[in-house]
Amino acid sequence: MRQRKYDLITFGEAMLRLSPPDFHRLEQANWLEVKVGGGELNVAVAAARLGLKCAWVSALPDNPLGRIVINKVREQGIDTSYILLSLKGRQGLYFVEFGASPRASQVLYDRQYSSVSMIKPADVAWDRILSQAKAFHVSGITPALSESAAETTLAALKSAKENGCVVSYDLNYRSKLWATPEANKCQAPMMDYVDILITTEEDTHKVFGLKGKNYEDTARKLADKFGFKAVTVTLRGDVSVLKNTWTSIAFSKGKIYSDKIYDVEIIDRIGAGDSFSAGFIYGYLNGGVQKGLQYGNALAALKHSIPGDFCWSDIKEVEAQIQGANLRIMR
Amino acid sequence: MRQRKYDLITFGEAMLRLSPPDFHRLEQANWLEVKVGGGELNVAVAAARLGLKCAWVSALPDNPLGRIVINKVREQGIDTSYILLSLKGRQGLYFVEFGASPRASQVLYDRQYSSVSMIKPADVAWDRILSQAKAFHVSGITPALSESAAETTLAALKSAKENGCVVSYDLNYRSKLWATPEANKCQAPMMDYVDILITTEEDTHKVFGLKGKNYEDTARKLADKFGFKAVTVTLRGDVSVLKNTWTSIAFSKGKIYSDKIYDVEIIDRIGAGDSFSAGFIYGYLNGGVQKGLQYGNALAALKHSIPGDFCWSDIKEVEAQIQGANLRIMR
Amino acid sequence: MRQRKYDLITFGEAMLRLSPPDFHRLEQANWLEVKVGGGELNVAVAAARLGLKCAWVSALPDNPLGRIVINKVREQGIDTSYILLSLKGRQGLYFVEFGASPRASQVLYDRQYSSVSMIKPADVAWDRILSQAKAFHVSGITPALSESAAETTLAALKSAKENGCVVSYDLNYRSKLWATPEANKCQAPMMDYVDILITTEEDTHKVFGLKGKNYEDTARKLADKFGFKAVTVTLRGDVSVLKNTWTSIAFSKGKIYSDKIYDVEIIDRIGAGDSFSAGFIYGYLNGGVQKGLQYGNALAALKHSIPGDFCWSDIKEVEAQIQGANLRIMR
Amino acid sequence: MRQRKYDLITFGEAMLRLSPPDFHRLEQANWLEVKVGGGELNVAVAAARLGLKCAWVSALPDNPLGRIVINKVREQGIDTSYILLSLKGRQGLYFVEFGASPRASQVLYDRQYSSVSMIKPADVAWDRILSQAKAFHVSGITPALSESAAETTLAALKSAKENGCVVSYDLNYRSKLWATPEANKCQAPMMDYVDILITTEEDTHKVFGLKGKNYEDTARKLADKFGFKAVTVTLRGDVSVLKNTWTSIAFSKGKIYSDKIYDVEIIDRIGAGDSFSAGFIYGYLNGGVQKGLQYGNALAALKHSIPGDFCWSDIKEVEAQIQGANLRIMR
Amino acid sequence: MRQRKYDLITFGEAMLRLSPPDFHRLEQANWLEVKVGGGELNVAVAAARLGLKCAWVSALPDNPLGRIVINKVREQGIDTSYILLSLKGRQGLYFVEFGASPRASQVLYDRQYSSVSMIKPADVAWDRILSQAKAFHVSGITPALSESAAETTLAALKSAKENGCVVSYDLNYRSKLWATPEANKCQAPMMDYVDILITTEEDTHKVFGLKGKNYEDTARKLADKFGFKAVTVTLRGDVSVLKNTWTSIAFSKGKIYSDKIYDVEIIDRIGAGDSFSAGFIYGYLNGGVQKGLQYGNALAALKHSIPGDFCWSDIKEVEAQIQGANLRIMR
Amino acid sequence: MRQRKYDLITFGEAMLRLSPPDFHRLEQANWLEVKVGGGELNVAVAAARLGLKCAWVSALPDNPLGRIVINKVREQGIDTSYILLSLKGRQGLYFVEFGASPRASQVLYDRQYSSVSMIKPADVAWDRILSQAKAFHVSGITPALSESAAETTLAALKSAKENGCVVSYDLNYRSKLWATPEANKCQAPMMDYVDILITTEEDTHKVFGLKGKNYEDTARKLADKFGFKAVTVTLRGDVSVLKNTWTSIAFSKGKIYSDKIYDVEIIDRIGAGDSFSAGFIYGYLNGGVQKGLQYGNALAALKHSIPGDFCWSDIKEVEAQIQGANLRIMR
Repeated sequence: MRQRKYDLITFGEAMLRLSPPDFHRLEQANWLEVKVGGGELNVAVAAARLGLKCAWVSALPDNPLGRIVINKVREQGIDTSYILLSLKGRQGLYFVEFGASPRASQVLYDRQYSSVSMIKPADVAWDRILSQAKAFHVSGITPALSESAAETTLAALKSAKENGCVVSYDLNYRSKLWATPEANKCQAPMMDYVDILITTEEDTHKVFGLKGKNYEDTARKLADKFGFKAVTVTLRGDVSVLKNTWTSIAFSKGKIYSDKIYDVEIIDRIGAGDSFSAGFIYGYLNGGVQKGLQYGNALAALKHSIPGDFCWSDIKEVEAQIQGANLRIMR
Repeated sequence: MRQRKYDLITFGEAMLRLSPPDFHRLEQANWLEVKVGGGELNVAVAAARLGLKCAWVSALPDNPLGRIVINKVREQGIDTSYILLSLKGRQGLYFVEFGASPRASQVLYDRQYSSVSMIKPADVAWDRILSQAKAFHVSGITPALSESAAETTLAALKSAKENGCVVSYDLNYRSKLWATPEANKCQAPMMDYVDILITTEEDTHKVFGLKGKNYEDTARKLADKFGFKAVTVTLRGDVSVLKNTWTSIAFSKGKIYSDKIYDVEIIDRIGAGDSFSAGFIYGYLNGGVQKGLQYGNALAALKHSIPGDFCWSDIKEVEAQIQGANLRIMR
Repeated sequence: MRQRKYDLITFGEAMLRLSPPDFHRLEQANWLEVKVGGGELNVAVAAARLGLKCAWVSALPDNPLGRIVINKVREQGIDTSYILLSLKGRQGLYFVEFGASPRASQVLYDRQYSSVSMIKPADVAWDRILSQAKAFHVSGITPALSESAAETTLAALKSAKENGCVVSYDLNYRSKLWATPEANKCQAPMMDYVDILITTEEDTHKVFGLKGKNYEDTARKLADKFGFKAVTVTLRGDVSVLKNTWTSIAFSKGKIYSDKIYDVEIIDRIGAGDSFSAGFIYGYLNGGVQKGLQYGNALAALKHSIPGDFCWSDIKEVEAQIQGANLRIMR
Repeated sequence: MRQRKYDLITFGEAMLRLSPPDFHRLEQANWLEVKVGGGELNVAVAAARLGLKCAWVSALPDNPLGRIVINKVREQGIDTSYILLSLKGRQGLYFVEFGASPRASQVLYDRQYSSVSMIKPADVAWDRILSQAKAFHVSGITPALSESAAETTLAALKSAKENGCVVSYDLNYRSKLWATPEANKCQAPMMDYVDILITTEEDTHKVFGLKGKNYEDTARKLADKFGFKAVTVTLRGDVSVLKNTWTSIAFSKGKIYSDKIYDVEIIDRIGAGDSFSAGFIYGYLNGGVQKGLQYGNALAALKHSIPGDFCWSDIKEVEAQIQGANLRIMR
Repeated sequence: MRQRKYDLITFGEAMLRLSPPDFHRLEQANWLEVKVGGGELNVAVAAARLGLKCAWVSALPDNPLGRIVINKVREQGIDTSYILLSLKGRQGLYFVEFGASPRASQVLYDRQYSSVSMIKPADVAWDRILSQAKAFHVSGITPALSESAAETTLAALKSAKENGCVVSYDLNYRSKLWATPEANKCQAPMMDYVDILITTEEDTHKVFGLKGKNYEDTARKLADKFGFKAVTVTLRGDVSVLKNTWTSIAFSKGKIYSDKIYDVEIIDRIGAGDSFSAGFIYGYLNGGVQKGLQYGNALAALKHSIPGDFCWSDIKEVEAQIQGANLRIMR
Repeated sequence: MRQRKYDLITFGEAMLRLSPPDFHRLEQANWLEVKVGGGELNVAVAAARLGLKCAWVSALPDNPLGRIVINKVREQGIDTSYILLSLKGRQGLYFVEFGASPRASQVLYDRQYSSVSMIKPADVAWDRILSQAKAFHVSGITPALSESAAETTLAALKSAKENGCVVSYDLNYRSKLWATPEANKCQAPMMDYVDILITTEEDTHKVFGLKGKNYEDTARKLADKFGFKAVTVTLRGDVSVLKNTWTSIAFSKGKIYSDKIYDVEIIDRIGAGDSFSAGFIYGYLNGGVQKGLQYGNALAALKHSIPGDFCWSDIKEVEAQIQGANLRIMR
């Protein structure tokens, strides 16, 4: 499989992200900072920055807003050949306001009627794309976008499986997009094609109605039920709005894996989970579950300190974290 | 009619307006300035700043984006009692990039599925509102938003007429919203309820297929055809992208009215036509057609120098312009 | 009293607030952010955002700076009919620089000769205003502005009492404005008209020379001495410049009330006390002392996370805090 | 006189100058840019940048705002030893909003009760200062600040004359500070000590009631009446708000001097007259009236392109303008 | 040649470009805007945006500053495979301050010791690269960087010729980098490999000592002397610093070609010449000299209105200009 | 020695410091904030703000970037007479990106080929300068810049000793500038001329290979070995990237001195060590080692809260910290 052109293909929506500066409420905004983000794109960016060859599959409107997205994807060295430039639908947006204790940060989505929500299975030549890839990643956000997006996701998962890709799936339940019964009904069948499930205790309970005695038990139960090669459960501790802890555990082939706990000062926590996914995939492909956990956690921890959805880091910084980086200024 | 509570009611959509600074293309945007605008709201704001008591009728989503709009309307001292806070639809947006010769400024609308496009005649108690008003104003944008918005516009116009309001209508044809046959079919019947038509030669030709030998003749033909009390034709000269001239003529009861030509250096030309409408209404209500023309032109000229859709000016500045204001710094 | 037009009238000064960004010292400023604030206005804003119908009484210069203030008051949906637009006096300003441990934040006032400091009892028709109101609020800053402002405050308090308003008074001692003997002499007689005193242990000692064995005893002694219906003592814990705790206790009719302690990460602590006042008044009017304490503390805690003097929050957020809000991002 | 320590001493007020960006009206301001300016300080700065050794005499409050001013004066290499740090009075401010045709730029002063307005003759050791200087400059703004400032100005002029300084006076009439009879009564006696008067036709007429047949005649009449060594009349042509022309003429010892007319694109015209004064003084001291005119006009023309009151230029740029500088980009 | 992978390869330096906002002098800078630019990169960007497949050859330091450059190149969809990431040398910078009449804009270079100045012929596999390309472009800046850069340029030109590329060369004399005799000695031999020379009258005279009777004659003489297939002479008219005219003429095979003159309002004129080159190459490859001239002039004219070195335009806008675009706002 | 003109002379490099806002990575930068800094200049600034008369010796390029530095030095009231304006070399730059846990802040230097690195002993008249000074300060960065800079540093140290100055030396080892053997070889001989050594345990070990049992022992060993009058060891505790503790100890004449530990919230920690040096020198000159320690620690602690390299504080704030300043807002 060494000769495949891509290390990782991801599929999903990207939005323009608009946020007021300096902890202003959205209602106070005179200016909005423009960034680009979306779960699976964030994974591709973080993975590409670690050195993986990545492509991202999506649909974007053929207008300046869609071009902002495509430009920012190219900027990260990600292949954009499989993005559908569409005359249908609009560019999805989301607004984020950053909080401080006791006010939590908040996201307001304006993503309805987006081009990617109108994507159909026939729009993407999955076999052609995925036969060139080592791994495929998608999250539970993509099938939640629309019925046709769900069908396209299922087609992608099947094709990935058939083409021998390592398939990872981030459960990522979004209550604004669908109800839990709907999420269950749509995603349960998809799990047949998934090798690695990335989830939290809360989402597992909501989507699959499954609750273990503890983190480890939840992971084990999930693996048992769906036959995953690996399950990871990410664990965030909310010390305050601006200070969290981060770690995760994994279960694979009868064994529990764990890693150190990171203290993080939060500049921007959006995309931390996606950075975990990227780091986990990188480590898993290059050494297995324990390495995946370590790279995933280090990258996720770093992400909290970086503005925007994207994790502007690199392999050296990740490995320095794993080895126990210093907090002093580096001159 | 002196004892009516409002001098002017307007009805239409307001959007969040997002624009990159310093002549950047939209595709280059790292930041977007947030302002609020929309034809009929712009008229209400400009009129309120001249001293008229105004209310604006619209629908907005009940979320922080809708609240930005309502806050900015209140900030201008406009009555917001008749705004429908809706759980349906989204907040309309538009993006503007400012150009310089030879690149024209451009607008990108993202206004589909807005709350106001879902408004229905039953949502507004027009008789209750308009019986308290001296004048009512709407533009051709509002009926273009949707079929139900067109029906609501027609209901408003009828009610305004019945309640003895002075009714002004800015033809404002928007090709992105509808085709000319559709615009004609919808609006021609509305003209029965209109006292004052504000238009350009180009829009008149597109919507009504009517073309005079010159500006004056166009105005005359319009008045003859529809029986308007007054018709104004605004005249913009494009010296360059950053330098224009502005004036307008009017026809009323057999007579042509004209005014001086203003040289304008363009900081932000959006809303200049709406400022003209506001100034014309103010002057017409307080003295007639010639005064309307003078106040309209002065306010429109001033608007070009003011950032945003709103015309942050006042009656003193308008009257100083009419009397021939100095271009020197005022200390 | 249900049919009164206003829930709350407040009276005091508002200043333009100018602050350098990003923790710069004032002496380093190249840019100053413009906001508007002032104790009693802050109370009106926070209360209006909870749903109370409010008006704010003050005087402002009739120039663009005064108009900034009036615009921002209107933006919050507060009635501005009783603001005196004056040709006398200037717009008060204050400069704030934000600190981090061990450097405390600092305020520099430039409020002398303001229009409101020249206000006289004859300038305000208190009976006409307060006969329409359920509650009246003022702080110890207003009488400190000038002798005539003190006379006008006394007139207001008397009228409020006579008109059956619930009268709340925030002691708020400002050493830059007056000395303690002066503050005592002026305010002690005012206490006859006050139902609810909002204070701190420190201010109580400075102004009334009164010191209890503890918070509760101080509150009790105050109530005993002046016959207040309720006394609240706000309690701020300075963990660091950027991290505080907040709570308060109350004494009313022989009983001590208390509430949970909030951990707050400080974005902008100015106006937290005013938010407490607003929340207390809201809760007191709608349920009594315990509810007042809870709404006051929740709103004060939230305020620390919001830029500016104003508390851009709402009733839902307050109630979520009272019920124990999550610190996770809300999507 | 070669061995004197200072080439030029100026005396007057400096204010913090606060202006909203991007042509926003003051009423629209969310941010204000902070700069420092004031007629005579501007002259000192422009002269110091040409190479003259300068000191500026004034009074400032001993607080962070006063320190901003003193810092910016030091930044320009101007001697600040003679600035009185005062516990009395406040830091004067002025607000400026930049316009575009047909809206003129506007200044709003908030300079009352400033420390410098409270200056008294006994506060400054004029003889000690001026005995070290070749030239002294003041404008008609300084005596307009207050009666005691006028007395201090008169004391300075007398001392300058006695100490053999070249004395220049910029008439600079400010209607916001005093009425014309008052300006006349105060300044006419001062003219006895003045060598060089810098004025405009309009100010000459207002203050001295003197009007010539043309510019040249006005200059001649002034020189005849007051016995000036030189009179300059600056001539601004208002093509539009953003485009002006600039030149000036001089009369000295029976002879009229003139110079070329500069076309200027206006970025910030405030301080252009002060730059003229600085350039004229520089040229006059180093070569006489014609050189003064050339350096004054070149520096004034350059000033229009530079943000802020200060003329961030230098002698090379001035001489390049005199020789006919290219408008192409300089690489 | 249709099947070649690249339409255009360019070779040269790119710098970080740092510029203070709002017409501030560099000496006044508190903030610097970061953009990326360099002659041949600008050509590649402008050409890629018209639809050509482009790669850019250069060397960059392997640090965050070099990565900014590579990111911005990727963002434009340009192939970055042939960029040498180097441990030698630094990232070149340039500072630009924007002027207004009579102050010209100015550039300050800080590009010495850059990684690309240390490039050697052996660092680039020209034959491998250029055998895949239809066209090659370089300017006179690249050989001026250093001796080894000149040798590498010569190697590139020879390889381009041998590989059958259309070779264009922009003479672009930079006096800060070398003297005219040196520029002549180095570049005259290079002309043997050039098909299309892009130049100005002034540079032609300085570098080749060649001066025609007029533009046309200069072009003809150049073509005669060096045997170019086409020579273009760009013609800029300096109406003012902020207003220019732009056109160009060409000479090819005995015939003079000309095009209309564009009036341009200058937002940022840097890179206009490079945009001309890109447009000319595009048009030349797709239709010949006249088309080259039209596309080059339209793109150059548009560039003046766009911030940064890069020409964020596209083929539709260029063709609209050629057909005579409207200056009105496009909705 | 009371009559000496300067209290303190420092010698070293100053760089333009460019940093992206709001915790952005350097690679994400669209804007860079411009400040000025450099070890010995930072000491002079902090000392001048405490009231010492200071001059700073350096070399700067004679261009706008060098002028930014000289302007900012003058702004702080520091004598710039001894700065060499050079035609050789460039303006050194450094880029800083601010981190949050677990990402440390990082500095990227671009200081090679700077004008000051080309300074030679003959360029500075050390005896003339230092005979007017009470104290001289330099750090280990200056000799690390180049061989000639090291020679110039040695010349300065000798002259300082001969002229009876108190000589302080901050060891400040920079691994980017030189290796430890080189640093040892160059600096060990310099120690003969040093009275006060300011260092950390880590630098002491790296440069002098000296390691005590603890802080106190390290200081004692250093004093013993080199015969210093005083040695200080600064002690930073890294609680997190945004939260540190700060204190220091000193050894002098057989005695250990210590001070309280400050908790600091980090806005900008660059220059904290330099502020310590300035405070120590101030206190040492005005009272001895214990006072030096107290003033040094207080100033260093304050510095962490102030943006930029410079410590915009003053003697009042330092003394308030020593006495135990309140963390509450100061009104």
